[in-house]
Amino acid sequence: MIIIVKDKATEKQVNELMEWLSGFNVRTNLVTGVHSRIIGLIGDTTSIDVDSVKAREAVEAVKRVQEPYKNANRRFHPDDTVIEVGGKRIGGGSLAVIAGPCSVETEDRLMQTAIAVKEAGADFLRGGAFKPRTSPYAFQGLGREGIELLIQARKETGLPIVTEIMDLSDLDLFADVDIVQVGARNMQNFTLLKALGRCDKPVLLKRGLSATLQELLMSAEYIMSEGNSKVILCERGIRTYEPETRNTLDISAVPLLRQKTHLPIVIDPSHATGLSSLVEPMSLAAVTAGADALEIEVHIDPKSAWSDGAQSLTPEQFRASMKKIRALESFVRNEL
Amino acid sequence: MIIIVKDKATEKQVNELMEWLSGFNVRTNLVTGVHSRIIGLIGDTTSIDVDSVKAREAVEAVKRVQEPYKNANRRFHPDDTVIEVGGKRIGGGSLAVIAGPCSVETEDRLMQTAIAVKEAGADFLRGGAFKPRTSPYAFQGLGREGIELLIQARKETGLPIVTEIMDLSDLDLFADVDIVQVGARNMQNFTLLKALGRCDKPVLLKRGLSATLQELLMSAEYIMSEGNSKVILCERGIRTYEPETRNTLDISAVPLLRQKTHLPIVIDPSHATGLSSLVEPMSLAAVTAGADALEIEVHIDPKSAWSDGAQSLTPEQFRASMKKIRALESFVRNEL
Amino acid sequence: MIIIVKDKATEKQVNELMEWLSGFNVRTNLVTGVHSRIIGLIGDTTSIDVDSVKAREAVEAVKRVQEPYKNANRRFHPDDTVIEVGGKRIGGGSLAVIAGPCSVETEDRLMQTAIAVKEAGADFLRGGAFKPRTSPYAFQGLGREGIELLIQARKETGLPIVTEIMDLSDLDLFADVDIVQVGARNMQNFTLLKALGRCDKPVLLKRGLSATLQELLMSAEYIMSEGNSKVILCERGIRTYEPETRNTLDISAVPLLRQKTHLPIVIDPSHATGLSSLVEPMSLAAVTAGADALEIEVHIDPKSAWSDGAQSLTPEQFRASMKKIRALESFVRNEL
Amino acid sequence: MIIIVKDKATEKQVNELMEWLSGFNVRTNLVTGVHSRIIGLIGDTTSIDVDSVKAREAVEAVKRVQEPYKNANRRFHPDDTVIEVGGKRIGGGSLAVIAGPCSVETEDRLMQTAIAVKEAGADFLRGGAFKPRTSPYAFQGLGREGIELLIQARKETGLPIVTEIMDLSDLDLFADVDIVQVGARNMQNFTLLKALGRCDKPVLLKRGLSATLQELLMSAEYIMSEGNSKVILCERGIRTYEPETRNTLDISAVPLLRQKTHLPIVIDPSHATGLSSLVEPMSLAAVTAGADALEIEVHIDPKSAWSDGAQSLTPEQFRASMKKIRALESFVRNEL
Repeated sequence: MIIIVKDKATEKQVNELMEWLSGFNVRTNLVTGVHSRIIGLIGDTTSIDVDSVKAREAVEAVKRVQEPYKNANRRFHPDDTVIEVGGKRIGGGSLAVIAGPCSVETEDRLMQTAIAVKEAGADFLRGGAFKPRTSPYAFQGLGREGIELLIQARKETGLPIVTEIMDLSDLDLFADVDIVQVGARNMQNFTLLKALGRCDKPVLLKRGLSATLQELLMSAEYIMSEGNSKVILCERGIRTYEPETRNTLDISAVPLLRQKTHLPIVIDPSHATGLSSLVEPMSLAAVTAGADALEIEVHIDPKSAWSDGAQSLTPEQFRASMKKIRALESFVRNEL
Repeated sequence: MIIIVKDKATEKQVNELMEWLSGFNVRTNLVTGVHSRIIGLIGDTTSIDVDSVKAREAVEAVKRVQEPYKNANRRFHPDDTVIEVGGKRIGGGSLAVIAGPCSVETEDRLMQTAIAVKEAGADFLRGGAFKPRTSPYAFQGLGREGIELLIQARKETGLPIVTEIMDLSDLDLFADVDIVQVGARNMQNFTLLKALGRCDKPVLLKRGLSATLQELLMSAEYIMSEGNSKVILCERGIRTYEPETRNTLDISAVPLLRQKTHLPIVIDPSHATGLSSLVEPMSLAAVTAGADALEIEVHIDPKSAWSDGAQSLTPEQFRASMKKIRALESFVRNEL
Repeated sequence: MIIIVKDKATEKQVNELMEWLSGFNVRTNLVTGVHSRIIGLIGDTTSIDVDSVKAREAVEAVKRVQEPYKNANRRFHPDDTVIEVGGKRIGGGSLAVIAGPCSVETEDRLMQTAIAVKEAGADFLRGGAFKPRTSPYAFQGLGREGIELLIQARKETGLPIVTEIMDLSDLDLFADVDIVQVGARNMQNFTLLKALGRCDKPVLLKRGLSATLQELLMSAEYIMSEGNSKVILCERGIRTYEPETRNTLDISAVPLLRQKTHLPIVIDPSHATGLSSLVEPMSLAAVTAGADALEIEVHIDPKSAWSDGAQSLTPEQFRASMKKIRALESFVRNEL
Repeated sequence: MIIIVKDKATEKQVNELMEWLSGFNVRTNLVTGVHSRIIGLIGDTTSIDVDSVKAREAVEAVKRVQEPYKNANRRFHPDDTVIEVGGKRIGGGSLAVIAGPCSVETEDRLMQTAIAVKEAGADFLRGGAFKPRTSPYAFQGLGREGIELLIQARKETGLPIVTEIMDLSDLDLFADVDIVQVGARNMQNFTLLKALGRCDKPVLLKRGLSATLQELLMSAEYIMSEGNSKVILCERGIRTYEPETRNTLDISAVPLLRQKTHLPIVIDPSHATGLSSLVEPMSLAAVTAGADALEIEVHIDPKSAWSDGAQSLTPEQFRASMKKIRALESFVRNEL
């Protein structure tokens, strides 16, 4: 951490600052130039709050040199994390495909969709039992019954299941779920993250609508610092001014996160674009950029879906896309 | 709601669409032009999901005419809502000032700050017991003890207290709190909102970092649709590309929300700007724009604050600002 | 175009509105419901300004049904535009690679880079002679001499050249340039666009830092409406709140623009990310998403570049990336 | 400027870096810690390009300590700049009001509006002769004739005139204009800025739609570094994701720019909000926040305006707002 001292700071203020800093178990190093004074902190600065430093009278600006996350940091964990669950792997070079409806709606629809995505080559079944909806008047999900239907679908197809938790109070219902998803709106629900950190269950953590990549990694750190290192990061589009797509898919997050962390990275092209016609090209782009997994919405009959129909693929569309995705995966792995 | 039909939609598809729509208890009206067909829906469309409509094959685009919120809508509730709590009012023409430290730290510091803000003319005491922090290694708040200290400070000063809830499981601890705050990161924690909707307690709801005003109002609607109409809206800066301020304070939210809703509107210049030197000018601007309340961070010794010191005023600064704020309030009310 | 009439509009106001609209050579169609009145406009509404309609007293809201661009619109020009210049093609299924230094610096450096990119398989040579720099104290480009050096490099390598125009007054200097580039900062320099519309020269038009895709297409329309239909669109990253990358590359722009327009689409991963380590993965992702061309910065010695060194590839890096790009191009064309 | 050296950088690389830096006429200071090495640069770093530094192999990150602008910097010019033109002042404590139509349309309309805004207390007349319009099919302004009409209106009312230049080639037409406006889309049209820097005429420089405040100041620096120090900065709303307003007015820009620069600051609430109903409250908020001037659109008959009618005030509305604005101005100056 580097601290730039104010031009007008008195020697007394600087000394107080140095003394205060020395309480953090780091070494300080003051460089005095003609027009500026700089303090370098040497040691583990993870626990030093940048805002607290900025609040000191003598401080003009602060710059962190080291990332404030440890467990999620590739610097300290050079090998890729691979998550194994239900006989499937996410991370470490293969491509996992998570597919299924936005919401679990009826037994019949879910089973048909589950069978269809299985046949098309999906590795995981997704489906929302608890649905975060902007409007209180929109369908809110089937809740417990939805999870039961997912478990039944797993029995029928063998696909491990991924579903979203919206509140800590529902945690017991997720005991038999394979991967617990934390939605974008809950990426900084820190109480929930800590509780998930005390479970022994993979967590698929979605990037918030306006979260920086560092904030995403800090949220992963919340889970990991409690002991659960099975975190999967998901880029699902960020909010920008562009109105044509629901969000803007930040594919550069894939190679960038790859540099910074050892955790696997999923791309969700369905929520990112909000348009079914963009799901295939963005899936292919994500595979090429190195994503470890895709999360794709598939509905047996999108036009009658209770939520997010406009972005869902039909089983036929998904099957056609999967052929290309698998062909590309193989090409990327073997030829690039 | 207006639906624009695709150029290429067949008559059969359009008929199916019309039939499906008629199931929502609204009347439909098809206008056929030379190059385009439009369907107008007449009646209460609140429960119709725009995305579901978009997913129908025949649909090119959809535009909502009426706002999807009812309880928060000024159209149906023309009179300003006034929240009365602990002998103080928010809304309805007066200006309430909520002040206090970012976090409750120690009994001594809180009491000193509480007394100082009371003397300077604040109406409410704020202080965080549960702190949403980006880093798991940063101070997370005193929790239950923090709330107890706030209650003690209320006893000493008479100021009603405002503090933030981070998770539903802590709700019991807030039984004796005057106003429960929902932070920006929880604005779309719908399970929490619904639970607060079943309390008889004012809720101060902060706008999410990248939430639209309509989404803020929909979150208010979540609380109100469960029966609690005591909702206070808070603009606290939105995330933009500008790096000089922590967020960008959207003061135009005040007159705009005033048109759309009857709920009171608070401005938080401290979190919005992140810079103590901007708190006074932005407070004054907010008062002029018609805010019902201000929420200002004050710390007995900002440079030693455990969180957000850079944006906190000292008691002296707060006192000086309050003089101007009260003088301006009186001028705005009587002369403009 | 659809106009939603205000609840409180009088019959007289509505009649005035209808009469005014009829002056635009379109047919109007008033639908009267119980709670709302809607006017549908039928005919060519391109010349009707949405803002002017909104300003009428009786108008609540306006929604355009048809896109306000004609020449750039795929609806009216279903076949892909292919730009042929100097024996090379952009658009229509092949992949063109434009490569070279950010700025033209010295004859020696430019020639070495030009030869290197030619050998690695580039189709066009890029290089800035006029450089838009945030600071007046930064290197501003060699100007006329820079263009002369590019022409010389073309003579030596046979590569057609692409270089940026910053002001109309320099237009004569571009007489012998193959493709004139309009930078992001000039995307809405309408006087310049119109002048380029009167040239018979391909224009590579970069998306503004915060321009919507529709605004990009409207800027293309400025050029095309003056007679020049040789417009190439370029996505080069948009400004968001994310600090890790210079901008956020919006790859979904490729398939989305493909639907809306027949014009070729270029991706510039160098300016979009600002990081040389992201150039290869984002280039590959762009190829998979269907881009017609890539624009990549290559410098003979990035660490000594006078501008944008941090995002430039070395010739060796470029050569290695080109092998992957060409292999992927062939796979995408033949196998996907 | 502070340079953080990469962990893995060799001693040879660091030495090369130090040597290269010493060529910029600054002193370097290397601090070696256990885990990190930092180089501090002491002296005038304005001419050092951050990107060039980042491109050096040994460099991990760079942080500028001093602002890269000199002429616009309050640090070197502590006193407020006051612009005097046509007997009116902008800056230095008074409040100037610039009012008039978006576009100059007809002689009759302009004269009526000019007389009306004069009577209501405006100090300057604004009006667009060259109009930057998103669509080539929209009204583009009267050009030369528009400027002639403005000059005529000045003769009749005595109000100095403000009008926008869109291209350098039109510069001669502005010889008799009092203040030349540079629009948001041209904020980084550097060729135009430099040319205006060689004129002896006040320039009203609007912030780009997604420009940072530092970029705005760097654009001012372009003008000033050529010799013209009469620059007026204008905040007119920035582009965000919020759809209710055209842009988001960043009022915090006023006190923040006040700290950083001595140049006068104008707020344009009309373009910022796009809604006439928000012009008055945002004007009042801007005055309270310390703006030196307001730029307000007024049209004799907004509903028939050829551009931007939805945001224009009628003369009656403007008169009523001006009463409040002047009353508030006096209160703010004397009582706050």
